[in-house]
Amino acid sequence: MSQQNLESLDVEAIREEFPILEREFDGEQVVYLDNAATTQTPDPVVDAMSDYYREYNANVHRGIHHLSQEASIAYEEAHDRVADFIGADGREEIIFTKNTTEAENLVAYAWGLNELGPDDEIVLTEMEHHASLVTWQQIGKQTGADVEYIRVTEDGRLDMDHARELITDDTAMLSAVHVSNTLGTVNPVSKLVDIAHEHDALAFIDGAQAVPNRPVDVDAIDADFYAFSGHKMAGPTGIGALYGKQELLEEMQPYLYGGGMIRKVTFEDSTWDELPWKFEPGTPQIAEAVGLVAAIDWLEEIGMDRVQAHEEEITRYAYEQLTAEPDVEIYGPEPGSERAGLVGFNVDGVHAHDLASIMNDHTVAIRAGDHCTQPLHDKLGVAASARASFYVYNTKDEVDKLVAAIDDARQLFA
Amino acid sequence: MSQQNLESLDVEAIREEFPILEREFDGEQVVYLDNAATTQTPDPVVDAMSDYYREYNANVHRGIHHLSQEASIAYEEAHDRVADFIGADGREEIIFTKNTTEAENLVAYAWGLNELGPDDEIVLTEMEHHASLVTWQQIGKQTGADVEYIRVTEDGRLDMDHARELITDDTAMLSAVHVSNTLGTVNPVSKLVDIAHEHDALAFIDGAQAVPNRPVDVDAIDADFYAFSGHKMAGPTGIGALYGKQELLEEMQPYLYGGGMIRKVTFEDSTWDELPWKFEPGTPQIAEAVGLVAAIDWLEEIGMDRVQAHEEEITRYAYEQLTAEPDVEIYGPEPGSERAGLVGFNVDGVHAHDLASIMNDHTVAIRAGDHCTQPLHDKLGVAASARASFYVYNTKDEVDKLVAAIDDARQLFA
Repeated sequence: MSQQNLESLDVEAIREEFPILEREFDGEQVVYLDNAATTQTPDPVVDAMSDYYREYNANVHRGIHHLSQEASIAYEEAHDRVADFIGADGREEIIFTKNTTEAENLVAYAWGLNELGPDDEIVLTEMEHHASLVTWQQIGKQTGADVEYIRVTEDGRLDMDHARELITDDTAMLSAVHVSNTLGTVNPVSKLVDIAHEHDALAFIDGAQAVPNRPVDVDAIDADFYAFSGHKMAGPTGIGALYGKQELLEEMQPYLYGGGMIRKVTFEDSTWDELPWKFEPGTPQIAEAVGLVAAIDWLEEIGMDRVQAHEEEITRYAYEQLTAEPDVEIYGPEPGSERAGLVGFNVDGVHAHDLASIMNDHTVAIRAGDHCTQPLHDKLGVAASARASFYVYNTKDEVDKLVAAIDDARQLFA
Repeated sequence: MSQQNLESLDVEAIREEFPILEREFDGEQVVYLDNAATTQTPDPVVDAMSDYYREYNANVHRGIHHLSQEASIAYEEAHDRVADFIGADGREEIIFTKNTTEAENLVAYAWGLNELGPDDEIVLTEMEHHASLVTWQQIGKQTGADVEYIRVTEDGRLDMDHARELITDDTAMLSAVHVSNTLGTVNPVSKLVDIAHEHDALAFIDGAQAVPNRPVDVDAIDADFYAFSGHKMAGPTGIGALYGKQELLEEMQPYLYGGGMIRKVTFEDSTWDELPWKFEPGTPQIAEAVGLVAAIDWLEEIGMDRVQAHEEEITRYAYEQLTAEPDVEIYGPEPGSERAGLVGFNVDGVHAHDLASIMNDHTVAIRAGDHCTQPLHDKLGVAASARASFYVYNTKDEVDKLVAAIDDARQLFA
């Protein structure tokens, strides 16, 4: 994307839609660089949910009265909107969950518990988030299926030769992150899916760090399942989405049982409703679905290409500033199309938690810890890392404040 | 409760906090009598969530920066507030779920799948909501445990003699609704729990229709598990709560796997975090927890005794008006302490859906259908029933509009 187009992203105008970015602590304005944990929520998204509660709040499942009709249409069409946003065929392929983690568990329970056995293998990557790693690890223990991990290389990429070695005809499921929340790596998910399919394995892609930041087309990726969360893409908490190929979702047993997912219930047995309702029992996240649609509208008005270009620009700048510091170790690939909008790092002699604490004294908000990738941190040989992660409202000035705070931390701990 | 106290409930002032109640369709103001499906949400609750997004939105799990500290405290303390509201001992006993249905499934999966076998019996009631009925029925099929149902009497109560007969030393779990969403019956849950405990069975009480409408004390009931939803008690969609006795929750295996519920993860295995986090993987419903606390604050400012008294008053009035109509059949017990704030009924010669549709022409919003209790409807000998359900903002004038609309329906179908 050209510099011309990048300049047309009016970050100052965008920031005006986020009152939280005006907050000050001890007289200093917050510098929010914790977007991989959760992004902030623009006014149009907050207003859409308030409008829902004040104007057409009602339970769905096609109640007959006006309010329920309005709420039902909004909730049902939210599935279509999400499907369209990620290139799925229609609402039958979109299940709303409470977060990406629940989407991963839904497939692990509804498909994994029923289909996996001691002769099967599950292939993960060493850079999986706990949402995927712990879930498949434990389902593996329950079913007897082996779990294996595709190696991460020194420069933070997947070892694709190792992937080709591990994925065999015994592989039943491959689950991989699209973008690593720790390394920033953008994985070649389309290739991974192809390898899985060559061996008749299914492929689950965890897109929690991808969908917020770049155009995603599940059809082009050919993933069997794909998951992401609203709160990481300018949307609300309490909602995530699972994409699944329709024929797979139709074959699968239900996961949670209850009202709204059944066709006929007797005291003896039950039959199931059509997709996507089969997987959405109980009163769903109606206001949250309304908020997610508003977030998608908001992002598409900016344009996902521009979101990606802005993040790559800020990330490149942050990477350059941080590599200029001789005592800073950065994890993951160099900037470019294989690096998403976050930088994980450590400063020699300063624990990541202390660094985050000093950052916070300067009102620079970063995350420090294992970022739900403990085994990857073990491999990196560190207990924790610091992570600065960016979104459309972040600026190079904010990166400068991050770097200045590192200088302070170094002086304190030198 | 005295009439004096009842009069002090200023319904007009309460209604001002619900802009949705001012909505008009074809010039007629909405009469919202679908509260058992979902209640409306007062401004202070909507504002609390908007304030969260605009002032302190951040991911929780004790991030180091200011915003995450504020969000973490709000989210963690929401557990304490809910615990206090229902008489639980502390946050360790409160798990946030997406709705009551998920709470039921959590126990069915985490406890039921691991503990039940072909020698065990699960006892339900004929008036169970599908959330409980379908869940335990299907867990029974998966584990080989038998499922039996406590009979409902002609006047819509549980046959307690039958309960004493069914609950034996083979019973592993009793699951019962506190208040029937179809009959309005308030069940003697404390007695049911006692019977279960005499036989060393556990007791799960579905309080989705009770917590919104009356003071509930899980300690006094002595339930092992108790569940309810935010959206039925002036709170947001997307959040429910499971109460569980601490020692039981500690013994139980996890249910969903992922980040935030683990202590240590390696490529080989994982260990689990403390309660309640063990059961809350992934980014939780943070804004929704804030909204739920605001709803509890709002309800307690009114006083749950007065909420109950107002609903009993409106329900008694509706019951009297409807019994005066010779062709109206009402389900469930007579008004009083064993009847909660809803009236399920049918009009002779008018299908419930047609009735709801004609009601809607008069902007009276009721629910028609099986109310997620198909087997109970089979037993009642009807495919569907109409249901008017009340909350603190409803008035006798609104009940009069309901009755007037029945007259219209009768004329149309006579």
